[in-house]
Amino acid sequence: MNFKLVFNLTGKVLLLEGAAMLLPLVVAVLYGESPLPFAWSIGIALAAGFLLSRLPYKKHFFAREGFFAVGLIWMLMGFFGSLPFYFCGQFNSFVDCLFECYSGFTTTGATILTNIEALPKGILFWRAFTHWLGGMGVLVLTTALLPSMGLRSHFLIQAESPGPVFSKLMPKQSQTSKILYTIYCVMTVIEAILLKLVGLPLYDSVIHAFSSAGTGGFSNRNLSIGAYGNPAAEMIIAVFVLLFSVNFSMYFLLMCGRAKDVLKSDELRFFFGVVAIATLAVCADIYPLFHSTWQSFRYAFFQVTSIISTTGFATADYMNWPVFSQVIMMMLLLCGACAGSTGGGMKCSRILLLVRCLRREIRQIIHPRSVSVVKLDGKVVEENTLRSVMLFSGCYFLISLLATLVVSIDNFSFSTCFTAALTCMSNVGPGLDVVGPAGNFAAFSSLSKIVLSSCMVIGRLEIFPILVLFSRGAWRRA
Amino acid sequence: MNFKLVFNLTGKVLLLEGAAMLLPLVVAVLYGESPLPFAWSIGIALAAGFLLSRLPYKKHFFAREGFFAVGLIWMLMGFFGSLPFYFCGQFNSFVDCLFECYSGFTTTGATILTNIEALPKGILFWRAFTHWLGGMGVLVLTTALLPSMGLRSHFLIQAESPGPVFSKLMPKQSQTSKILYTIYCVMTVIEAILLKLVGLPLYDSVIHAFSSAGTGGFSNRNLSIGAYGNPAAEMIIAVFVLLFSVNFSMYFLLMCGRAKDVLKSDELRFFFGVVAIATLAVCADIYPLFHSTWQSFRYAFFQVTSIISTTGFATADYMNWPVFSQVIMMMLLLCGACAGSTGGGMKCSRILLLVRCLRREIRQIIHPRSVSVVKLDGKVVEENTLRSVMLFSGCYFLISLLATLVVSIDNFSFSTCFTAALTCMSNVGPGLDVVGPAGNFAAFSSLSKIVLSSCMVIGRLEIFPILVLFSRGAWRRA
Repeated sequence: MNFKLVFNLTGKVLLLEGAAMLLPLVVAVLYGESPLPFAWSIGIALAAGFLLSRLPYKKHFFAREGFFAVGLIWMLMGFFGSLPFYFCGQFNSFVDCLFECYSGFTTTGATILTNIEALPKGILFWRAFTHWLGGMGVLVLTTALLPSMGLRSHFLIQAESPGPVFSKLMPKQSQTSKILYTIYCVMTVIEAILLKLVGLPLYDSVIHAFSSAGTGGFSNRNLSIGAYGNPAAEMIIAVFVLLFSVNFSMYFLLMCGRAKDVLKSDELRFFFGVVAIATLAVCADIYPLFHSTWQSFRYAFFQVTSIISTTGFATADYMNWPVFSQVIMMMLLLCGACAGSTGGGMKCSRILLLVRCLRREIRQIIHPRSVSVVKLDGKVVEENTLRSVMLFSGCYFLISLLATLVVSIDNFSFSTCFTAALTCMSNVGPGLDVVGPAGNFAAFSSLSKIVLSSCMVIGRLEIFPILVLFSRGAWRRA
Repeated sequence: MNFKLVFNLTGKVLLLEGAAMLLPLVVAVLYGESPLPFAWSIGIALAAGFLLSRLPYKKHFFAREGFFAVGLIWMLMGFFGSLPFYFCGQFNSFVDCLFECYSGFTTTGATILTNIEALPKGILFWRAFTHWLGGMGVLVLTTALLPSMGLRSHFLIQAESPGPVFSKLMPKQSQTSKILYTIYCVMTVIEAILLKLVGLPLYDSVIHAFSSAGTGGFSNRNLSIGAYGNPAAEMIIAVFVLLFSVNFSMYFLLMCGRAKDVLKSDELRFFFGVVAIATLAVCADIYPLFHSTWQSFRYAFFQVTSIISTTGFATADYMNWPVFSQVIMMMLLLCGACAGSTGGGMKCSRILLLVRCLRREIRQIIHPRSVSVVKLDGKVVEENTLRSVMLFSGCYFLISLLATLVVSIDNFSFSTCFTAALTCMSNVGPGLDVVGPAGNFAAFSSLSKIVLSSCMVIGRLEIFPILVLFSRGAWRRA
């Protein structure tokens, strides 16, 4: 393991993180709030980043360095990112700050705050901005801004990007990263403008644009999007979280005039199919509560898009809906968005591949001598990828159950503990019961908060980088 | 697909099932109850079996025929086995009869009865006897009794036997089957005698011996084992369900004087390790409720063994225990017993292999050029087996979730619906809340009961045979 290079890279990311905190500092100053929490945090992050990025290194960079670096960087990034929360003095403990920050970067959107509106605007801005930074990935950003390291940085991006199959848009990773961030920025700006146009305050528009771009879910209002009672804003957000849940290479294909290829994407069709069916099912299920097709559709569509995109905004408390709708929400939460998007969960392509592997298994029992491959978008998927998909699916549940066990020490109901673990693994935010859309994570013990924060990072990085980081083999000198 | 042979085989199993019902008929007569429900059922089963077993067939038998036959036979066996329940007139609907019978054969032990003690003794005997028949497998029994079919019957047993790896004890399957059933019978008789010796009535001893041999869980008492308040009986049952949860090839090895090989079994050590840790954890967790180490141990040990063996007997209602213990129960329920035993669940060896596959994945990220194999008991496990294990784990949860969705239409709580699906998939019996140890499945709709019965069969046969049965490919003419 090339530790020096990993630490150097970590240093560069911390420098970037320090720089990113300048934005909330400016916001704090604009609103007449103390810039000190940010000034302190920026100082510490830059100092640490400067020291680490001075380390000399060899350009020896492979998959293991990629996984290890991504694991380490995400762990540290959460630590330094939580400093403004700590210094602002409005959080009960440092564990709460960490929870909130990991929830931000991993775009989970689970909160330990009970009165969000009481916080300074600068802090709430940073909170939503972490979603935006974490959504597309800080290492994607790093490679877009620092193309000069000369590393095989696709190993880095591969480890950070969600989904089973990694697609390169351009020969150079730095070019790919630039394209991705440009699309991301443009879409975020358009959403913020649209939200402002339908009547949200400018500040709220920006916050919710960040939050939905990262499919995070932090709002600056206690009642989330429900606070505005603004159907136009709800529809804009619902449509945008869907757009941000789509594999960004689709937009690249569209830009290249290859709309046909987009329409052929199995994952995209599956994703929109699930959204349509789930919306219809929830709509029918909650109709008796609203007695209006439009109102049922409005709440059903918003909640379905909010959960499957793993954003977690709320306009209604689905804990008051029939259990059928609640189970649909939990299934959407697990399924999650498309690979290569800013969304979380298991990813639609993994579910698709899992079902196709199952079909192949049956086919091979019936015709044992036939050679059978699994395809996605008409292309054969490598056996290594399939193995990793199947392993991921099995381990996803086992890890969630282990987390449930630790969280259950707090003695909340089984569905609270289990869905808290699942929602953190899937980077959604709300679960059921105590952690339902109207609830929060404040009542959990510090141990539970640490375990759930770990789940968020494990889920965001899709298990393997964190396991590499904590494996003995990675720490052994070559 | 060689349909004629499959139907012929089905006929033979139905003849055997008809013959097996003679036993409860005798019990009914002995207790002065009407033998008619059994007489009718025997007549119908024998008639159907006779007709089917007359079909001429070719000895063309492969894995697909094995899977297909096992799927079909288990579906039909449940139907014919439910006839005595139907004819006795004490069940509310035919769906209830089916549910109870599938719960019996699959050794789940979930019941729709609210007052078990009100039923005739013959019926309760048949109910427990289905556990015994289903535990080791009806096809194992068929091959033991009818060795003359000249088929490659290991394909049949492979599809019926639980676990990822299939081990042959003897060159001929019929010999293996005979050895397995002999061990099974001897252990059942010993348990019944021991239960009688510590004070249970003879009838109750036999019922509970059948029930624990199959790791089923049907009792003839409303309060299950808790009705006796007999610690000696509890300990006997706890130890025996553990013994029945062990791979039966271990007993064969012991008989051959190869105790060393038994001690080397990874799965066995894992299984007993989990039992020990879970017992200690639950014991500590429930200590404040009992203020006595012995009482805590008594209830913890019984409940842990009852759930991990997927039996589902109860001496206490763990819904009154802390949630931590409840989550442990749910984890044990999922984990289940050893492969090649009468227990259900995912099986310890699958969990072990899954963890080892995960370790290998990490190793391969760190050392991409190394060739890495996964071992069990010191032997390399084939990649096909590993693939099937990983696929099984992923699909186990997905199928449970789909079942949860359908069951949730009944609008019971999420934890009721989810654990009902899980407990049926794992062939345990109790779950949480409404389906907790003190509850039952009576309140579910017919749709839910059908779905949950399907889960039991899917879980008992470990997914693939049922999928083969319902796949288009299997029904196509070659």
